[in-house]
Amino acid sequence: MARRSGATLAEIAAEAGVSLSTMSKVLNGRPDVSAATRERLEQHLRRHGYTRRGAQRAEMIEVVFHELEAAWSMEVIEGVLDVAQQAGLSIVLTVSGDRHAPSPDWLDGVLRRRPLGVVLVFSDLPAPHRAKLRSRGVPFAIVDPAGDPAPDVPSVGSANWSGGLAATRHLIELGHQRIAAITGPEDMMCSLARVDGYRSAMNAANLPIDPDWIRFGDFHATGGESHARALLTRPNPPTAIFAGSDLQAMGVISAASAQGLSVPGDLSVVGYDDIDLARWLSPQLTTVHQPLRRMGEEAARLVIRLAGGESVDTLRMDLATHLVVRGSTAPPAS
Amino acid sequence: MARRSGATLAEIAAEAGVSLSTMSKVLNGRPDVSAATRERLEQHLRRHGYTRRGAQRAEMIEVVFHELEAAWSMEVIEGVLDVAQQAGLSIVLTVSGDRHAPSPDWLDGVLRRRPLGVVLVFSDLPAPHRAKLRSRGVPFAIVDPAGDPAPDVPSVGSANWSGGLAATRHLIELGHQRIAAITGPEDMMCSLARVDGYRSAMNAANLPIDPDWIRFGDFHATGGESHARALLTRPNPPTAIFAGSDLQAMGVISAASAQGLSVPGDLSVVGYDDIDLARWLSPQLTTVHQPLRRMGEEAARLVIRLAGGESVDTLRMDLATHLVVRGSTAPPAS
Repeated sequence: MARRSGATLAEIAAEAGVSLSTMSKVLNGRPDVSAATRERLEQHLRRHGYTRRGAQRAEMIEVVFHELEAAWSMEVIEGVLDVAQQAGLSIVLTVSGDRHAPSPDWLDGVLRRRPLGVVLVFSDLPAPHRAKLRSRGVPFAIVDPAGDPAPDVPSVGSANWSGGLAATRHLIELGHQRIAAITGPEDMMCSLARVDGYRSAMNAANLPIDPDWIRFGDFHATGGESHARALLTRPNPPTAIFAGSDLQAMGVISAASAQGLSVPGDLSVVGYDDIDLARWLSPQLTTVHQPLRRMGEEAARLVIRLAGGESVDTLRMDLATHLVVRGSTAPPAS
Repeated sequence: MARRSGATLAEIAAEAGVSLSTMSKVLNGRPDVSAATRERLEQHLRRHGYTRRGAQRAEMIEVVFHELEAAWSMEVIEGVLDVAQQAGLSIVLTVSGDRHAPSPDWLDGVLRRRPLGVVLVFSDLPAPHRAKLRSRGVPFAIVDPAGDPAPDVPSVGSANWSGGLAATRHLIELGHQRIAAITGPEDMMCSLARVDGYRSAMNAANLPIDPDWIRFGDFHATGGESHARALLTRPNPPTAIFAGSDLQAMGVISAASAQGLSVPGDLSVVGYDDIDLARWLSPQLTTVHQPLRRMGEEAARLVIRLAGGESVDTLRMDLATHLVVRGSTAPPAS
């Protein structure tokens, strides 16, 4: 029951001039408190550094996505679920907000549900949200944060730069020189890191990069398709494309095949993620294996340890990526 | 607070010679009651037709799978999640048991979690489990039951027989005569219904069916691949294969391409499900659209209505399927 400040909830309520019941409603995310009062009482809680401890917790971990993308999301979920079920916990699945933050509603919901902890996937958590969760003693960890995670935020990522480097090196070793890169949004660190890996591999091999060859988009198949269509209809098209996700790679292959190009005969394609289906595509997809399942597992373990009051010495963990060579890459036709 | 029997929980406990607290533990799935006592007390509850009402419910729907298969499961989850979030509910995701029933542990877990209701996916629920959930006032619905659902079990399926018929007719109309069918497990009604649709289409066209052409397996890619390999290395191989799932179809295409056969040039392939990725395969997959998302939505709506005390007149609902013709089917070569 230790708290950073000596003040009890009743004392903070008295200071704020509200009843304990109102204070308690705010603490538990219950409705019927006006937004203004809520905000004012949150300030009191923050000023006292109030941290709730020992409150009854639901036996569950909440997993929050900003979108469910079948192949990708499911592997992360499976990782969290494995670790949770071994610990006798269930998981609550929530889709909320965008990749910058879950929606404000979500925060009230999670305070009502009182999970043991929260795993946020591919989403950031603004400072006020972090403070709220901390004051309620709800630990959290982030899988593959979209931006620079704050240094005090527990997070699990993977080696994006090395992945981009390995994918591009493989294409260079096959003899490709005109290599384009399609990646995710420009404001996501993972997109930037992968493209920087690509750049470094190209520079190390003294290969020029046409500015038009680097394309930011989303991680979906449609984006891969439209960027590839643009690239392949250029006068001097690339002979290889490094895609930012396996879905984008499927879009690229679809665009190639619409233009009568065969993969890997006329165009080599490397994906990213190594989703379960990658080896069932025809041709089987050469791709960078991102340990999505293990990332989910590690984030769940972090949350369980934090919930148990353990201190965690490494708040940031980057798991290794590696290239899996399959059938979608080959030497250029020339 | 109405109950079918007049007996209160205290009266039933007294009759059984245990304390109210022990009875209450059994009711709420708490541990520290021996299995034998638990079973004995369940019998007392059943005999009195005890139904708990009005107990506090967590604001969530529990979704139970026996396995998470990325593409397929995610669409059902999305459907449930949409309806749940609109109703201000969260979802709990559980993987448990096999396709005949969730594990016994699960049942205790769900009694502790007290969700508003349960959606079981692709799983059956044995009569004693149904009785337990009913006595706790936890409504449930089943998505695509594996066997004949009991007539009093709310369930949402889809028109499997019509799907099998439409897929096979399409192949026949293209001019195929040697058509094989790979489907799911022989003890699942949906597998049988799809194969019966296939048989009816073949019979209506006076086409013979070699017994070796009908193959039961699982719904995974590996199964599709091995059955297709066996079929395609026969002396007089089929020119078209109707697969029981899109994953199986990917396995079939993989087997064909390993034998140097092109799809649809040398072999036409029809899948089943129409998962999100089906249109991103190369060639794009011709497949039977099964409204997985809508099946999840309808099951969630059923559960919410039942939880609200509404009576539901149609306990069984079969949503329509339809064929989506894309690039993996064509007239036979010869």
